[in-house]
Amino acid sequence: MIKLSDAASDLASDRRTLDRATCEGLDAADPLASFRDRFDLPDGVVYLDGNSLGALPRATRAHVDRVIAEEWGVGLIRSWNDAGWFAKPQAVGDRIAPLIGAARGEVVLGDSTSASLFQVVAAAARLRPERRVIVAERSSFPTDLYVIESVQEAVGGAEPLDRRLVHDDGPTLDDVLDDDVAVVVLTHVDYRTGRMHDLAEVTARVHAAGAIMVWDLCHSVGAVPVDLGSAGADFAVGCTYKYLNGGPGSPSFMWAASRHHDGARPALTGWHGHARPFDFEVGYEPVPGIGRFRVGTPQLLSLSALEASLDIWDDVDMALVREKSLRLTELFVSLVDRRLAHWDVEVVTPRRSSLRGSQVALRHEDGYAVMQALIERGVIGDFRAPDLMRFGFTPLYVSHADVWDAVDVLHDVLSSEVWRDPRFAHRGAVT
Amino acid sequence: MIKLSDAASDLASDRRTLDRATCEGLDAADPLASFRDRFDLPDGVVYLDGNSLGALPRATRAHVDRVIAEEWGVGLIRSWNDAGWFAKPQAVGDRIAPLIGAARGEVVLGDSTSASLFQVVAAAARLRPERRVIVAERSSFPTDLYVIESVQEAVGGAEPLDRRLVHDDGPTLDDVLDDDVAVVVLTHVDYRTGRMHDLAEVTARVHAAGAIMVWDLCHSVGAVPVDLGSAGADFAVGCTYKYLNGGPGSPSFMWAASRHHDGARPALTGWHGHARPFDFEVGYEPVPGIGRFRVGTPQLLSLSALEASLDIWDDVDMALVREKSLRLTELFVSLVDRRLAHWDVEVVTPRRSSLRGSQVALRHEDGYAVMQALIERGVIGDFRAPDLMRFGFTPLYVSHADVWDAVDVLHDVLSSEVWRDPRFAHRGAVT
Repeated sequence: MIKLSDAASDLASDRRTLDRATCEGLDAADPLASFRDRFDLPDGVVYLDGNSLGALPRATRAHVDRVIAEEWGVGLIRSWNDAGWFAKPQAVGDRIAPLIGAARGEVVLGDSTSASLFQVVAAAARLRPERRVIVAERSSFPTDLYVIESVQEAVGGAEPLDRRLVHDDGPTLDDVLDDDVAVVVLTHVDYRTGRMHDLAEVTARVHAAGAIMVWDLCHSVGAVPVDLGSAGADFAVGCTYKYLNGGPGSPSFMWAASRHHDGARPALTGWHGHARPFDFEVGYEPVPGIGRFRVGTPQLLSLSALEASLDIWDDVDMALVREKSLRLTELFVSLVDRRLAHWDVEVVTPRRSSLRGSQVALRHEDGYAVMQALIERGVIGDFRAPDLMRFGFTPLYVSHADVWDAVDVLHDVLSSEVWRDPRFAHRGAVT
Repeated sequence: MIKLSDAASDLASDRRTLDRATCEGLDAADPLASFRDRFDLPDGVVYLDGNSLGALPRATRAHVDRVIAEEWGVGLIRSWNDAGWFAKPQAVGDRIAPLIGAARGEVVLGDSTSASLFQVVAAAARLRPERRVIVAERSSFPTDLYVIESVQEAVGGAEPLDRRLVHDDGPTLDDVLDDDVAVVVLTHVDYRTGRMHDLAEVTARVHAAGAIMVWDLCHSVGAVPVDLGSAGADFAVGCTYKYLNGGPGSPSFMWAASRHHDGARPALTGWHGHARPFDFEVGYEPVPGIGRFRVGTPQLLSLSALEASLDIWDDVDMALVREKSLRLTELFVSLVDRRLAHWDVEVVTPRRSSLRGSQVALRHEDGYAVMQALIERGVIGDFRAPDLMRFGFTPLYVSHADVWDAVDVLHDVLSSEVWRDPRFAHRGAVT
């Protein structure tokens, strides 16, 4: 039996033989190995795209079917009370809270992540009405920037708010932080490179400048430990269809530190956020607490699929997830170093584990075609323009042997040059 | 066999005997009767709340299960292309278009109705930047008013836009329409009384004043014929979980006349509305067409349930729906007049058919308790504060015999005074 605690450093320092048997040994000692049985994964597939769409939990089909047949079909309108539908966005939020270091009553499910970010960034900016700047990262997932454009206009008053973009190539956060910055919006784990911010350290710097800190947790919730509470952050949004396995387009969540609940004015004021929604009053009055971030009727079937996947998360130790995640990404990088040195493949993701989420990006000039050839062979990652192949490592269902097999197939694709086949050429496909 | 065309006027003019056998005769001659078999309704229930949450179509469970098992479980991330997920909000919109007099490419599915209304009203107001007023109805479903409050602030610039509320008790639309009105937001069929506007006539009046017309179709789509195109209206939103039977919280739709597509600036700019979403550009550029009203990733499972119910609508003749709807509401009102005259029950819904949607509201001082007693006996309607009992008549699955039975049970509840039992007292329940 291989000692797990040594494995990662062994891999990194290149001291040991590394073959499929080594990987199988790591799997045999993996305390999370049994979680794989709680997912339905197709045969013959190594799924390394859980950072984009998580795999299907085995319990989801029956749970959603029961909600449809019993809660909707039989309960009908009565289920808004009897099945707790109205309370569900907050009840589900309370189940996500432990994964992000939030307290009960601080998390609520919303519409799409983009809509929720609009909701939260607008509320954040309104807490600093005397300041005129929103800071964001140029490398953000673009919808964050697009949403910020809308917030700049919606909250700005006579003139739109200004925006300052930071980037690894400069300007840095310290360059742009001054007393005109109202809000800083950063993504904890970068969607392309997997680079991770130090959440507490950055929050402290932003607070020192008097600004409000908004975290985008799309690529970190369920992938790495997150502790918003200890960091003293202000707001966050996150995605539930990646590492949380809630299903395609499952609803986003919003978090607000409880100190902001009663002063916050979200941008969208719908009846589900009203203090007395069933009194049908003419004027809007926000409910106390996180509920004021709600807008309209939640999409219950998508929400119910997420509930089924959270049953898994109730049993998960995030420390073990992080440990395995680092072992998987470390293993992948080591294998890429050892086996793909001959080809022009660059590891873009930070090699230092404290700076890395649960994914690895490889740069290759023809990354699109290489990825299509990989997918045809059952190794599913994805591609991000212009030249990045992304591989997500989801500790609950990806094994060490999967990592071996993925690099093995990648080796074959590169050495055979099969990716040069015209059928893999970029045709503007959407994902 | 009873001649259907005569039945409604016979009922109204009170010329004929009216008993359960008469109703069964109407059912035997009903050209829509077979549609009831396409729904799963619980035994022993008369469901008159399809105006709040539509019943479960028989095909939905299998369809959603297939989407979960095959498209998500097996297709995984590939389904964004292979199963058409990315295109789905517009593909499903094209299937709703015929129900509202819209052209292909003019309808798109969104988040909640509240979020979609924000999106559309903001875009409408921005088309009249020199005007400062949004007009709405005080009797709107309140979320419309709450959302308009947000639009007033988001679009107003230095000062929020003004709002003028019209009401049956005054001021009227003509009182408030002047050249400072940018947008008029009206609900086609009132959520409480079922009163219906003349969509074309009102649109023409609003246009004559130079304003933009936004229709809320939540209580009309699938209930009454709607022809936005002929009316020359500008924007609309609607709900799919009422008469369209898309399931709890199924996504709202947005409609914009094609002449507005390329000039419209919706409030929420997310990546699914971008011209090139998978180029991951830093700046937002809206896609030409209705797609620019999209925001983020659609909640696919909720959307897939809606797809299953639209298979039914592909086979429905809206003229027959309207004919049966009027027959059902007429029958209900006639029975209330004949059998409940002894109790203090007032028909609030217009008796003139051209002014009525597909629901009837009865006013009763203790409407809440009466409705709870009805529900306990299997007649499901709902209650709207302070004193309205609502009964929705969904022509695809409500029969004439159902209407008889509902009034019969209502008669029993009123005559026995069982509703005075303390267990039916108002406890602030949510629906």
